[in-house]
Amino acid sequence: MRDAYNLELDNLRAQLGDMVQLVAEAMELATRSLLHQDLETAEQVISDDVKVDDARSAAEEKAYGLLALQAPVATDLRIVVAALHAAESIERMGDLALHVAKAARRRHPEPVLPPDVRPAFERLGDVDVRLARKLERVVRGDDAEAAKSLEDDDDEVDEIHRNLFTVIMDSDWQHGVSPAVDLTLLSRFYERYADHAVSVARRMLFVVTGRMPNHSSSDV
Amino acid sequence: MRDAYNLELDNLRAQLGDMVQLVAEAMELATRSLLHQDLETAEQVISDDVKVDDARSAAEEKAYGLLALQAPVATDLRIVVAALHAAESIERMGDLALHVAKAARRRHPEPVLPPDVRPAFERLGDVDVRLARKLERVVRGDDAEAAKSLEDDDDEVDEIHRNLFTVIMDSDWQHGVSPAVDLTLLSRFYERYADHAVSVARRMLFVVTGRMPNHSSSDV
Repeated sequence: MRDAYNLELDNLRAQLGDMVQLVAEAMELATRSLLHQDLETAEQVISDDVKVDDARSAAEEKAYGLLALQAPVATDLRIVVAALHAAESIERMGDLALHVAKAARRRHPEPVLPPDVRPAFERLGDVDVRLARKLERVVRGDDAEAAKSLEDDDDEVDEIHRNLFTVIMDSDWQHGVSPAVDLTLLSRFYERYADHAVSVARRMLFVVTGRMPNHSSSDV
Repeated sequence: MRDAYNLELDNLRAQLGDMVQLVAEAMELATRSLLHQDLETAEQVISDDVKVDDARSAAEEKAYGLLALQAPVATDLRIVVAALHAAESIERMGDLALHVAKAARRRHPEPVLPPDVRPAFERLGDVDVRLARKLERVVRGDDAEAAKSLEDDDDEVDEIHRNLFTVIMDSDWQHGVSPAVDLTLLSRFYERYADHAVSVARRMLFVVTGRMPNHSSSDV
């Protein structure tokens, strides 16, 4: 009985790991579509989002099954609830990648990004995808250490996000209001994506170790 | 046994209702601080946010207690899980009100809003607070009908949000890049607040009636 339960729990972790893999790939492709005005890639991210939604429903049903049939208590209960929260946050990460792809599609064939901010978005994309890859390992239970460096990655995203605001609001900004508005939202999408990744990792670790990593994540 | 369980479930709903009341008030005050450069009110929203965080922890603990001690199944189980998701979303609504208050404080004593967009933010604040008041009734189980009109309110928020972008990106925009960036984020905070309210209401109703309201909410 106990072994069957743990097997089911492993399956749930694997499902969530697959889901993180999907949203990591979504953000990687969305960033590519943004940097290269690549409409086909943008469309692919947009049409693939339904896979993330389906994966979330499947993970939720698995979690309900565990709760209803096995009535876990203590740490086991908290792991299942953390998985439910994780499924919601990971779906949200997919939505944020989708928003990036939609922005690329909306301006196509015009570039969304003025040349001077391209490197910043290249870095945002890199760090977000790196974060998601680490989160995948944390979720699968393969690498608890990854959670610590995940917080550092999140700090890096916050710093790029803040620097972008400085650039946009500087009197040297040559590109006018409309790109400024696009970049403000886009930068926020990357920043929220990273926040969700950290929050899932913290919650998963907390239920396993009983301790939050010694680091607080900021918002905005 | 069964009655004690329902009593506990009522308590959980009441806790969530109180939490929604807190974040409704937070958005009301945050909007006031934004419209009137009212630093004292902004500070109050910022310092009161901890009450929302505490209320969320308390609601989560109550939900864990119900899951661990009563091992609910079927609809009862889904109500408790919906409550857990609700606690997270309502806390997020509080964070979004907090962001509005922080924007008001950051620019103080300068106004954040150019005069021509003040009416739009007055409406955003009004509709968000109205949404939250209706959500409170839905959560307390007092008014399932409120959920339908809540979707209409969300549409209204989306429309104000979209109109604001048209105004900001118009060639007549006189206020430069920096206010445009502020308004873009602020408008998004109001829009996300409404989205969270609708998503909590939909989930609570779904678990009770087994049907989603016949309306899909948009994002961005």
